[in-house]
Amino acid sequence: MIKAGIIGATGYAGGELVRILVNHRDVEVVWYGSRSYIDQRYSDVYRNMFRVVEDVCRDDNLTELAKEADVIFTATPQGFLAGILTEELLSETKIVDLSADYRIKDVGVYEKWYGIQHKSPQFISEAVYGLCEINRDKITAKTRLVANPGCYTTCSILTAYPLVKEKLIDVGTLIIDAKSGTSGAGRGAKTANLFCEVNENMKAYGVASHRHTPEIEEQLGYAGNCQVTVNFTPHLVPMNRGILVTEYASLCRKVDGSLPSYEEIRAAYDKYYGNEKFVRVLEKGVCPETKWVEGSNYVDIGFVVDQRTGRIILMGALDNLVKGAAGQAVQNMNLMFGMKESEGLELVPCFP
Amino acid sequence: MIKAGIIGATGYAGGELVRILVNHRDVEVVWYGSRSYIDQRYSDVYRNMFRVVEDVCRDDNLTELAKEADVIFTATPQGFLAGILTEELLSETKIVDLSADYRIKDVGVYEKWYGIQHKSPQFISEAVYGLCEINRDKITAKTRLVANPGCYTTCSILTAYPLVKEKLIDVGTLIIDAKSGTSGAGRGAKTANLFCEVNENMKAYGVASHRHTPEIEEQLGYAGNCQVTVNFTPHLVPMNRGILVTEYASLCRKVDGSLPSYEEIRAAYDKYYGNEKFVRVLEKGVCPETKWVEGSNYVDIGFVVDQRTGRIILMGALDNLVKGAAGQAVQNMNLMFGMKESEGLELVPCFP
Amino acid sequence: MIKAGIIGATGYAGGELVRILVNHRDVEVVWYGSRSYIDQRYSDVYRNMFRVVEDVCRDDNLTELAKEADVIFTATPQGFLAGILTEELLSETKIVDLSADYRIKDVGVYEKWYGIQHKSPQFISEAVYGLCEINRDKITAKTRLVANPGCYTTCSILTAYPLVKEKLIDVGTLIIDAKSGTSGAGRGAKTANLFCEVNENMKAYGVASHRHTPEIEEQLGYAGNCQVTVNFTPHLVPMNRGILVTEYASLCRKVDGSLPSYEEIRAAYDKYYGNEKFVRVLEKGVCPETKWVEGSNYVDIGFVVDQRTGRIILMGALDNLVKGAAGQAVQNMNLMFGMKESEGLELVPCFP
Amino acid sequence: MIKAGIIGATGYAGGELVRILVNHRDVEVVWYGSRSYIDQRYSDVYRNMFRVVEDVCRDDNLTELAKEADVIFTATPQGFLAGILTEELLSETKIVDLSADYRIKDVGVYEKWYGIQHKSPQFISEAVYGLCEINRDKITAKTRLVANPGCYTTCSILTAYPLVKEKLIDVGTLIIDAKSGTSGAGRGAKTANLFCEVNENMKAYGVASHRHTPEIEEQLGYAGNCQVTVNFTPHLVPMNRGILVTEYASLCRKVDGSLPSYEEIRAAYDKYYGNEKFVRVLEKGVCPETKWVEGSNYVDIGFVVDQRTGRIILMGALDNLVKGAAGQAVQNMNLMFGMKESEGLELVPCFP
Repeated sequence: MIKAGIIGATGYAGGELVRILVNHRDVEVVWYGSRSYIDQRYSDVYRNMFRVVEDVCRDDNLTELAKEADVIFTATPQGFLAGILTEELLSETKIVDLSADYRIKDVGVYEKWYGIQHKSPQFISEAVYGLCEINRDKITAKTRLVANPGCYTTCSILTAYPLVKEKLIDVGTLIIDAKSGTSGAGRGAKTANLFCEVNENMKAYGVASHRHTPEIEEQLGYAGNCQVTVNFTPHLVPMNRGILVTEYASLCRKVDGSLPSYEEIRAAYDKYYGNEKFVRVLEKGVCPETKWVEGSNYVDIGFVVDQRTGRIILMGALDNLVKGAAGQAVQNMNLMFGMKESEGLELVPCFP
Repeated sequence: MIKAGIIGATGYAGGELVRILVNHRDVEVVWYGSRSYIDQRYSDVYRNMFRVVEDVCRDDNLTELAKEADVIFTATPQGFLAGILTEELLSETKIVDLSADYRIKDVGVYEKWYGIQHKSPQFISEAVYGLCEINRDKITAKTRLVANPGCYTTCSILTAYPLVKEKLIDVGTLIIDAKSGTSGAGRGAKTANLFCEVNENMKAYGVASHRHTPEIEEQLGYAGNCQVTVNFTPHLVPMNRGILVTEYASLCRKVDGSLPSYEEIRAAYDKYYGNEKFVRVLEKGVCPETKWVEGSNYVDIGFVVDQRTGRIILMGALDNLVKGAAGQAVQNMNLMFGMKESEGLELVPCFP
Repeated sequence: MIKAGIIGATGYAGGELVRILVNHRDVEVVWYGSRSYIDQRYSDVYRNMFRVVEDVCRDDNLTELAKEADVIFTATPQGFLAGILTEELLSETKIVDLSADYRIKDVGVYEKWYGIQHKSPQFISEAVYGLCEINRDKITAKTRLVANPGCYTTCSILTAYPLVKEKLIDVGTLIIDAKSGTSGAGRGAKTANLFCEVNENMKAYGVASHRHTPEIEEQLGYAGNCQVTVNFTPHLVPMNRGILVTEYASLCRKVDGSLPSYEEIRAAYDKYYGNEKFVRVLEKGVCPETKWVEGSNYVDIGFVVDQRTGRIILMGALDNLVKGAAGQAVQNMNLMFGMKESEGLELVPCFP
Repeated sequence: MIKAGIIGATGYAGGELVRILVNHRDVEVVWYGSRSYIDQRYSDVYRNMFRVVEDVCRDDNLTELAKEADVIFTATPQGFLAGILTEELLSETKIVDLSADYRIKDVGVYEKWYGIQHKSPQFISEAVYGLCEINRDKITAKTRLVANPGCYTTCSILTAYPLVKEKLIDVGTLIIDAKSGTSGAGRGAKTANLFCEVNENMKAYGVASHRHTPEIEEQLGYAGNCQVTVNFTPHLVPMNRGILVTEYASLCRKVDGSLPSYEEIRAAYDKYYGNEKFVRVLEKGVCPETKWVEGSNYVDIGFVVDQRTGRIILMGALDNLVKGAAGQAVQNMNLMFGMKESEGLELVPCFP
């Protein structure tokens, strides 16, 4: 039985980790960390867990936790883990970090977009970017630190990855218009996230400045083996869960000047995702909907080739708290401990 | 491996049966019945099931299905099962009926409230009313036909049952004000259930005439061993899932004229539900919320003793598609086949 | 042109006052009071008012405001106005108080339910309870202080008033089950009111202890000329606006033992509301819906006589920010200044 | 008093026309046309209109209506008006057509995108495209037929117009990602528009094939005096009202190779919209939100210059039923009858 600790267990991503892990047959949660609710019963914070979780919340003592736990999930604000991570901790336990601290290899880029100084850049190179479908071979029993990808990032990258990799699109033209449910904004008590402010409303935010942008650019740059600069625009949608990305790019014309066909695009997706359990490339003409993946670890992908404009429109959908956060974190943990990758993640999407 | 067939598999309750059964380790769904979508792939109707369910929908041929299946779930309109049920069918397969056809023992009451003639009243006496927490001992390997309770009914009865049974309340004063998410209205294409008509709106409907009324009255009558007549008022709420009932009744005064205390009421609940997995009586001062049971088979119950008015206010919450329909149906099936009652139902509520 | 000041202009009720008053032909808003946003432009707080309102928010200086304004609306927390009201202020300006400070005539009842000491009980007797349809003759040019009724209260009282007044129901049996949109919870940044906590959720709160209870009891007591004690249970619904009350009471039987007919009940409503512009008693069989009154000053009322139980079920719907707060406040102001009662309130409900 | 008739009065756009016109001081609605509800009271279909509108619905008899009405609004399916319009009708009454029948000057384009034959192309050249802010000088007392723009179209065009006109952006790179509330899908009883299918869900639809595309292209083509081909992707959002468009285009570099500054872009907007009542260009850094225009005739516009990518991101928001349909239709009517353009449209946005 693997012993897991969660730091930030009372945020929405932390809560989702709990939901998944209590049904994971090989994991026992031994530490519910929450600075805001120390000594309160976890089920008094999340009453859905009444009679499911009996534990009380504990302070964030990573030193002690590292001795108790085989793996620690840090669902914490940016800078938290970077501020306390040590070689000693990593020698005692594995860490799956749901924050952005170790996602970006270039520390200067991190510091610029996040506006904070990175306190432990020495671990960045060791951290594996935990996008399992792409980096699976790097996530092994030897891996000590996984940087769990962001929610928008996971959806944006997986949707475009095969086409960038196969050089089917001109990445210089890539535009990502993303829409997210409100759980992505976290559980902090802010006026802007009140029901009456979000409900019956829609807006863009963080235009040309959202922190997931450099993460997308770096990873797609690896895929295309080139510098990638994209426009990424997130929007807030009046729903609890779900991210939908709509991506636009000019298709690279073939030597005869024609555009790639639907089938050629499809073949690229099949090449990379044909055996992937959690990536579902939908059938021709079907657009993904966030509700079809709700509560599950799936990413649904669809696309339309537009002969009129020479562009392709890509669409991807996932549950931001599952594949976009806690589900992917568990998927990474499974890989790090040599378990079946989908263990605990056989979650059937809930509809309606 | 138990072979199960579902008639009405493309309604919302049918869809929830599928969601639950695909993760049930001892059951295999062999028949996805849907008159509206014959020969279409099930996952083309419910795309959340893409790559989860590969089957196509089939016509409603119970005779053939009875030969293939060990158990049939009928998630069908009122009168459907009553119109075709035969001794032959029941000799070949077990049936869990999610419609109201066999819930009410007095066929006259059924025909009056439902406005249709009952075509096979001879099976009513055999049918077991499948409210597991109350009728568990009657749901056995010998049971051939279970009448699965209605969604409002399950919530209304379980919330009041111990107090009626223990004669702590004057059932003559019982009033049930119920609120339901919109999935309870079904998947039929009606203007009244369009998003724009339901969203940002709330209303009562079926006032003093809703068909779940006699079902509640009959069952609480058994509990109290008396005639029960209640006011039951359902309301439509702009949310997908969830039923909340708020019940009002005058407390029976004790011989000294005082009202029962919180602790005495609590003891009654503990007496009947202390060992129940799926009924969670919340702690003092906590009111149930539908979100805390969403996606799970739980019923959450809370209550407040009002010394000012001499009444008690009871509150119960469940997910209308799970404990109010498909979950309870599976719970009944588990009992009918001697399996662990909670098999396939270890569903952790999803929040947010 | 009447000069109006608003204290608490950046709460939801204050915002609705602004929305209504900017289109009121005889009123000019001269003071947008908001302690939280002093010196900020009002339209930076409520951007719907961009280019509609040019003013900046000002501190809560009632002394100065009283010199500038003919009428002050106080949309403030309980105790605020009571803490600063003086004879001098009232000699200079009229006040419509949207808080509860002067609603309850018995100061002991106020202090008990609100848990605060009343700082200026000497003005309670002068204050007129501004339920226009019932107290219209008391709201005149001489009125200096109006206690604007609460949102739940307005709906609960108007729905039952004619039947209490005409002694058609046994008030001892009256139970009020109320449901409210989330704007009633105000604009404070609380976790419980976040989108993800309210959306797809429903709950009761303040069970047997909500502060609108004594206000309802007092006013219905005047109507029935008797002591009234009710159960009042509010619920939170995932929608922005709207209150729906469902009320239950036993009908008083006539001397021949029969129940009053639909027509007799209807006649009572017509007697009191036949000429009321803002109270719409719906036709037989029609249940009110909150969406049908959204954005307007209407109260919609329906009822069903249940011969089976001897009870009547009453239903009332209003927009909590309009007839439940700002609209009624303007209606009171119109009466206090001898204007047409509906001036500025000819708001057509918005659907969908 | 202008006499107005509405054909299609019981659709959502028709209902909004009624809401606006009943408060228009110079207009009387003399005909509530609705084939689906002939002889039923209008207020039985839209109960918000109880005691506001007393009329019954009438069949679609344009010949008779033309004799009674000074202006007819046709809120009808594509092809309806084209199928019955005659010179005689136009000689008797003015028509504001809310369908697409006369919006597109090239009948071949219309027939291709709409898949129907145009039955009266002879009136296309006469019809004025009623985007008031751009074509105001063409909408006069002489105008007999106005083609009222589509909802997506109005928002998409107005957001980009000044930049296209001033050649600040490369129109060849223009991509429009649009999000709409569900009232845009109409009031037809379709499964896909049920509450449970739309709520907590988001999807793209009509990708690369939506009928508003050629309308946008034609009008922006006039602005830029060039051929325009765009990607336009609509999305369905779980809210009743509101359209948000996010548009992307490469900025044209200046002769010195630099990008236009924020101020230069702003100046272009001010040049065209500086005096426009209904177009609000928001201040720097402010992104439009649909809630801020709900119920009003405003279009809110914001933009961000992205120096990193050389692109500009434009955002526009409107209420699809007001500025996107009924409000703009009334604005056109006002112009056609020489009334104040904003008459009846001084609607303050409703928040929350």
